[in-house]
Amino acid sequence: MLPEINNLNSFREAVRQASGPDDAAAQGATDRNGQLTKPPGALGRLEDLAIWYAGWRGDARPQITSPQVIVFAGNHGVTAQGVSAFPPEVTVQMVLNFEHGGAAINQLAKAAGATMDVHALELERPTADFTSGPAMSEDDLLQALRTGWAAVRPDADLLVVGEMGIGNTTPAAAIACALFGGEAGDWTGRGTGVDDAGLANKTRVVAEGVMLHGGSGDGLEILRRLGGREIAAMAGAIAAARALHIPVILDGFICSAAAACLSDISESALDHTIAGHQSAEGAHGAVLAKLGKEPLLKLGLRLGEGSGGALAINILKSAVACHSGMATFAEAGVSDS
Amino acid sequence: MLPEINNLNSFREAVRQASGPDDAAAQGATDRNGQLTKPPGALGRLEDLAIWYAGWRGDARPQITSPQVIVFAGNHGVTAQGVSAFPPEVTVQMVLNFEHGGAAINQLAKAAGATMDVHALELERPTADFTSGPAMSEDDLLQALRTGWAAVRPDADLLVVGEMGIGNTTPAAAIACALFGGEAGDWTGRGTGVDDAGLANKTRVVAEGVMLHGGSGDGLEILRRLGGREIAAMAGAIAAARALHIPVILDGFICSAAAACLSDISESALDHTIAGHQSAEGAHGAVLAKLGKEPLLKLGLRLGEGSGGALAINILKSAVACHSGMATFAEAGVSDS
Repeated sequence: MLPEINNLNSFREAVRQASGPDDAAAQGATDRNGQLTKPPGALGRLEDLAIWYAGWRGDARPQITSPQVIVFAGNHGVTAQGVSAFPPEVTVQMVLNFEHGGAAINQLAKAAGATMDVHALELERPTADFTSGPAMSEDDLLQALRTGWAAVRPDADLLVVGEMGIGNTTPAAAIACALFGGEAGDWTGRGTGVDDAGLANKTRVVAEGVMLHGGSGDGLEILRRLGGREIAAMAGAIAAARALHIPVILDGFICSAAAACLSDISESALDHTIAGHQSAEGAHGAVLAKLGKEPLLKLGLRLGEGSGGALAINILKSAVACHSGMATFAEAGVSDS
Repeated sequence: MLPEINNLNSFREAVRQASGPDDAAAQGATDRNGQLTKPPGALGRLEDLAIWYAGWRGDARPQITSPQVIVFAGNHGVTAQGVSAFPPEVTVQMVLNFEHGGAAINQLAKAAGATMDVHALELERPTADFTSGPAMSEDDLLQALRTGWAAVRPDADLLVVGEMGIGNTTPAAAIACALFGGEAGDWTGRGTGVDDAGLANKTRVVAEGVMLHGGSGDGLEILRRLGGREIAAMAGAIAAARALHIPVILDGFICSAAAACLSDISESALDHTIAGHQSAEGAHGAVLAKLGKEPLLKLGLRLGEGSGGALAINILKSAVACHSGMATFAEAGVSDS
């Protein structure tokens, strides 16, 4: 059951108090894995994935039948600083494209057998430009977290959260820099494709934001000051999935920045997550390293929308299908040495 | 249409004379890719995959609806040298497991929406021990090539070939060493899990085989002397797929050794193939590098059966689904800059 989130502290508490995986189910899955008709370890990382999934689902022989992809969209005041190669009206245009089934994530969700939901978060009311003040009020942040929190289907058995928001690699870079330290340039990339001058400008904007807001509080306060509504909604959905014991495949740079805010609140907040794909967005690999996540895929995507996470769904499905569908040595009458 | 293969030279000719991709379809796919609702290049390698697939299928907006997985099984006289951690009777036991749907490849083929066929090649008649003579006669080789050649469904639109054959990382290592040079130790790995002494013994066996047969002819002659029936059948199937313009996802070490024999006959023989997964079997990465193939996945599998290739089917399907299913900027009314 999902607890009520009535204020930011109840969100923090929900993140800190969420329960862990079912150790008995994970042990049962480990035992089963050792009996399957293959040499020990021959399915490599697929074996670890299946056991991890079994633990979180509390079932030593689980199935994945109902994955959910959710795309959150938001607009960003910081686009006034010229940080993106695309104009902000593309956010709402792409939301329509999602709704009409024409975007990459629609095809990827379908190929993964996942349902897909789109939540546009007050696109007509962009966040404030974080170079002159906090991006969101406390109430803005709370409402966005709650949107994400409520968006997860309780009967989903796997979740991918993605985003659309022109300019949002800039807040993601600022969040990463504020949480992990280093220079703005370490975390700032080309997004949808800014040129060298654009990258220099974007780096300046990230530096200004971190100068103004860095060190001002925990991951949730950093999210409020430097983030955006879709980033907060992603964090809300990842946290809700944890409370519901629904495993999550993280998407790219922006999703990982949202996840990092949760990780800052509670070290174990991302134990129910794996990294689907390492984006070509410059600093994504560094964020994943900070989060201790080894990506399943590295195919050079840098699109967002949940695309990298959705692409990895079939890998996890395949891992679980092998684990739960294979015969044991005894069942198949195969010599095990 | 598939030409008849009546002797080894007609197979060589078929490999050398197979036609290339349809450049107009590939160009049409490239043009379409540039109009899809995403920043240029944002789908990374998925874009290249879709264009490559479109060229081979002769369709600028293709679909993948009928993938085929074929598993070939063979037994190896060289197991008398104690090269495997498992006894040779496991080959026939695993063939039954494939037929009853209990193996990893059954689950992976199903998860990929692929049909699966199993061909056991005279398991009661292992190849000769290559440390004392050629593994196969010319007629043995021809029959195995023909089995693979005839096993490909002409209406398949994607092919993965896999294998089962206790001991077969040893002939694969010997083939790689004979074709690519270097020391036996460079190409010999632990297979299903031999210990250090087993690895030393296996390396000796590979060295003896290469000493006896290396430099004796082209890839097909190396395949005859050092290979096995399932390895030859894989080569036959990969070549038939080329003649039928069916793209192939290569599997692991043994599949790649089979492919390398074709590559030795004709430089362009593998242009219709991509590498699905880099195996944890030690030398697979080196073989793929020699073939100029960058694997889609690296997840530590070392099972064979076509498992790594099958796992990659959904990646290629996703790439093609994005390419052919996404809206263009004009269709979606999205600003493209």
